[in-house]
Amino acid sequence: MAIHHSASESKHKVVLQPSGRSGMVPEGITLLEAARRLGVGIEAICGGRESCNKCMVRVEEGMFPQYDLHSLASHLSPPGERELAFRRRGILPSGYRFSCTARVRGDVLVTVPEESRAQKQVVLKQASGRAIVVDPIVRLHYLELEPTRAGDRADRQRLLCELERRFGLSGVEFDYLALRELSETLHKADGAVTLTVWDQRLVIRVQPGYHEQPLGLAVDVGSTTLAAYLCDLRTGELLATATDMNPQVTYGDDIMSRISYANEVASGRDRLHGAVIRAINQLARNATRQVGLRVRDIVDMTMVGNSVMHHLALNLHPRSLGVAPFIPVVEDALDLKASAIGLRFHPGARLHVLPLEAGFVGADNVGVILSEQPHRQDEVMLVIDVGTNGELLLGNRERLLCTSSPTGPALEGAQITHGMRAAPGAIERIRIDPETLDVRFKVIGEERWSDELPPGKIQARGICGSGIIEAVVELFAAGVITASGRFARGLDTPHLIESDGLKAFVLVDATQSATGSPIVASQRDVRNIQLAKASLLVAAQLLMQEWGVDAVDRIVLAGAFGNVIDPAYALALGMIPPCPLDKITSAGNAAGDGACIALLNRAMRLEAAGVARWVEHVDQPLADEFQSLFMAALSFPPIPEAIYATRRK
Amino acid sequence: MAIHHSASESKHKVVLQPSGRSGMVPEGITLLEAARRLGVGIEAICGGRESCNKCMVRVEEGMFPQYDLHSLASHLSPPGERELAFRRRGILPSGYRFSCTARVRGDVLVTVPEESRAQKQVVLKQASGRAIVVDPIVRLHYLELEPTRAGDRADRQRLLCELERRFGLSGVEFDYLALRELSETLHKADGAVTLTVWDQRLVIRVQPGYHEQPLGLAVDVGSTTLAAYLCDLRTGELLATATDMNPQVTYGDDIMSRISYANEVASGRDRLHGAVIRAINQLARNATRQVGLRVRDIVDMTMVGNSVMHHLALNLHPRSLGVAPFIPVVEDALDLKASAIGLRFHPGARLHVLPLEAGFVGADNVGVILSEQPHRQDEVMLVIDVGTNGELLLGNRERLLCTSSPTGPALEGAQITHGMRAAPGAIERIRIDPETLDVRFKVIGEERWSDELPPGKIQARGICGSGIIEAVVELFAAGVITASGRFARGLDTPHLIESDGLKAFVLVDATQSATGSPIVASQRDVRNIQLAKASLLVAAQLLMQEWGVDAVDRIVLAGAFGNVIDPAYALALGMIPPCPLDKITSAGNAAGDGACIALLNRAMRLEAAGVARWVEHVDQPLADEFQSLFMAALSFPPIPEAIYATRRK
Repeated sequence: MAIHHSASESKHKVVLQPSGRSGMVPEGITLLEAARRLGVGIEAICGGRESCNKCMVRVEEGMFPQYDLHSLASHLSPPGERELAFRRRGILPSGYRFSCTARVRGDVLVTVPEESRAQKQVVLKQASGRAIVVDPIVRLHYLELEPTRAGDRADRQRLLCELERRFGLSGVEFDYLALRELSETLHKADGAVTLTVWDQRLVIRVQPGYHEQPLGLAVDVGSTTLAAYLCDLRTGELLATATDMNPQVTYGDDIMSRISYANEVASGRDRLHGAVIRAINQLARNATRQVGLRVRDIVDMTMVGNSVMHHLALNLHPRSLGVAPFIPVVEDALDLKASAIGLRFHPGARLHVLPLEAGFVGADNVGVILSEQPHRQDEVMLVIDVGTNGELLLGNRERLLCTSSPTGPALEGAQITHGMRAAPGAIERIRIDPETLDVRFKVIGEERWSDELPPGKIQARGICGSGIIEAVVELFAAGVITASGRFARGLDTPHLIESDGLKAFVLVDATQSATGSPIVASQRDVRNIQLAKASLLVAAQLLMQEWGVDAVDRIVLAGAFGNVIDPAYALALGMIPPCPLDKITSAGNAAGDGACIALLNRAMRLEAAGVARWVEHVDQPLADEFQSLFMAALSFPPIPEAIYATRRK
Repeated sequence: MAIHHSASESKHKVVLQPSGRSGMVPEGITLLEAARRLGVGIEAICGGRESCNKCMVRVEEGMFPQYDLHSLASHLSPPGERELAFRRRGILPSGYRFSCTARVRGDVLVTVPEESRAQKQVVLKQASGRAIVVDPIVRLHYLELEPTRAGDRADRQRLLCELERRFGLSGVEFDYLALRELSETLHKADGAVTLTVWDQRLVIRVQPGYHEQPLGLAVDVGSTTLAAYLCDLRTGELLATATDMNPQVTYGDDIMSRISYANEVASGRDRLHGAVIRAINQLARNATRQVGLRVRDIVDMTMVGNSVMHHLALNLHPRSLGVAPFIPVVEDALDLKASAIGLRFHPGARLHVLPLEAGFVGADNVGVILSEQPHRQDEVMLVIDVGTNGELLLGNRERLLCTSSPTGPALEGAQITHGMRAAPGAIERIRIDPETLDVRFKVIGEERWSDELPPGKIQARGICGSGIIEAVVELFAAGVITASGRFARGLDTPHLIESDGLKAFVLVDATQSATGSPIVASQRDVRNIQLAKASLLVAAQLLMQEWGVDAVDRIVLAGAFGNVIDPAYALALGMIPPCPLDKITSAGNAAGDGACIALLNRAMRLEAAGVARWVEHVDQPLADEFQSLFMAALSFPPIPEAIYATRRK
């Protein structure tokens, strides 16, 4: 492209800030077109109809010797009627122009504000705070058709011609239901309609008049927890989050029991499928209701989940995932209509299901990769997605390994005597004085610790995953339990009671409990936590062995639960391999973040497809080898210094 | 391609009869592959699995000096286990081989029987008897997968690899529902499945085991009559036909009244849509039941109909078709899932809707073009599709014009005092003695005329379209009515009675009537026939005027009703422009034939798309001009000699 100053009268220099891109463009083209030619995408839903108010740019006045040009607003064509109306209403500030109608008449310097860029940057609000470029696969286009005359082509064809003329989209098709909307809409709307176009090739919705907020939903289908993120697909903004239990837990706690249910019970698979779809529909209603929007405006969804959750959500039989060699029905990414699996958004809404990796390592882990990007790093990173089915990644840009671990739900507070979900009233932090064995704790929803408040002020309802982990570590550090996990013999303290024939330690007495009964950690609870943490540790060790490393550079704890666990306690529990404490971070629900990333950026869907086939799956070893690794992983490591530090808090 | 004899030891000459195609092929390739390279497609559902028995060819023995080769069966690899089993069971005759497994070891001469060809010729059974090549868009492919091993790709991917390896199909996708069938089927079928593939790119069905009969349904949605043709998509055989009234007649006799109903009545459009879809589902059930097959095996459907029937069947609002400039919502051909509009065939079944031309000239007329091929002729042909909404074509390979005519249902026996559908008991032929005014007639379902049977033997139930046309012509020829259509004055005959205050001629007295009341032709009946025939004649005259011809070379009467009308009577009625009697033919339901052609031959769908955009629509003239043409067209022309000839029969 010629970007030198030219003497030709028919060309002018255009400089775009903040990118600094510049070049010569022909007299009379719009700033929108000039920016496109210089490689800067400006958003324009209405394609030059002066309706959408999205393409405004600031025109800089004065001399700009550094750019060798003298920019004046008069170097642009004057504003038209509609543009002036926007200015009078105060929507278009002084000094700004619609780039879709301002035509280049001389040299100009314009600034393209972030909100006018076709590909905006947004920062995901979750823990990681990573920035992504908003470039969704669904875009809105506003069109106005002239009244029909004899010899005109059909409505559909006229819209497609206009779509090509104004937005350069060719070869676009209509979804059948969009055709029906068209036949109902065009007449009422006097020819002014907003088309929702998927992948620049399929019209999935026709709305009367002007619209600018397509909604998208990213859904993480966990074995125990469902999470849905409602996004504005134009701005990339996270509008609302909704989470709930996966109702499939009624039919079995973990993935193997769900497979059995699907195999053995008549229409068991349909029931599992129906339950999770109803729950996702409910999450969508909750999320849209929070912000006063309509489920019907959701036009795109992405979904992640482990292989079994993936199959059940799609109503594919998980039978072959339950027996070696664990071959799924489909592993590649899928694009389908959301309605095909019973989701009740807009009837034309699309669904993108991220690809599976292998075995039980599913689309949720692909989401984690999108979010954590281990394949783009030099450091050898271990990512542990802590969930009922734990999934682990190890590697860097050279090689990436994955495996899964049947952790079970104990680390999420299930299968624990007084376990509960991470909800208000749940104990999430706990400290035990090694001298007195007195217990201090903190519950979700209250900033202060129990000893900072009058006795009985806190009513604890139960203990969540991070709470029980800290409790087990503290019991070990205080000598109440041994390195093998047994309650120490001969300990004489009123905290120790007998409960259902098992020894149990009273964490919270009846006066501070919402149920009126003490909240305890029993011998069985300690055992369940040991089994779960050993399962994760063995999986990490297997990956390290396969990769050929003794230690990792960095550990990321992912999963909704990984977000709240204190890295020092994870280390003290022996749930993760040794690593400097400052190299252990939490990534929040990285799988959910990955689903959001794929929702907001179409290219990331391709990246997901590529990396899913590149990552190598490491199988669990044969029973004997596994057994000995597992036995060793059950016990607790020596208490790290960090724990003493945290207890002095 | 080198087809000369080569000295190379690694090549052999293969000659294929009856085409005579020949060439050198490498040692060791199968006869199937050799034929493909020589441009002869051989059918093979199983792709070399020796299961489908479709690819058999006859191997000729002996010396063939004319081909410069010496063919012996030993010049092929010996038969394998499965092939020998087929021979023992008598399915594979002596001298025949499976071309998918017989490998070329020397020069051979083989005959490919018609039934083994990939593209068979079939003759449509309707009146025209035209032959078409069977090359459907849906094909079956039988595959066998090996048991899974560790590291295998997902089921879907393994099937797609096999589909590419055995049948050369690449880039194929799975319909979501086919994926579900796959997850339910593969396990039960031990890896042996038949895939139904649409357009070489979409798997729409997965069946366990071997299958070879995909069903297709061609449907003509007429304003008054629905017709469905059930075909075997592999052989092209017409298996069954089913027809019924269009239940939309309850909501209005003609297309304008249906548009009004859709416009004015709440959910009127949904009701019209639902009625016709239920009727098509019923026709499909009837047709499959006739031959002991299942509706669930229908995997493809084509549909034709005028513009309003087209919109209502697709549940698109016909509003804009009711007001100038009569722009449809969509005019191009549509490919969708049959289930999208409520058709209950196989859930993955496809629907191809032929394109509209313009105005009311719809996909039914495109069907007529496919069937009658006026665009491939030198003769200037006038095709009149006689229906409630008449559609006319005029032209040849140079130029093709179309228009429509609001004929009304009178010519089909509706809006006639004793009119009825063409069903058993309906008078279809009638003769009136000009001397005595005695009436002879023939009813559907009885070969003999009324005067060849004892009095009272025939019980006529009413009069159908062809009967009423003949009655009107005969009444005119006998002088009972004048050229202007009025009953002649002063006629004294007991046949003439007064009925509802109108003059009426008794065609059949009470003794020969199934109802016990006479069957008459009233003054209003004559008027209704005049209005309908004038409407068709004016439309034909308009096209001739636009084309610039005074006479046409050939007239084709199409439509289920066009099939039974006697050309001599059509001419005598003045329903068609003058033309030598031997140049007037009936084409049966040409629209339905066209739907069958598009069902059986994929290339014809493209031809339909092209011709639909090429044909020119001639608008009806302004009211004044139309009025004078119409008035002139109402009266009857002089009785042609042919009528006297037919009366002497």
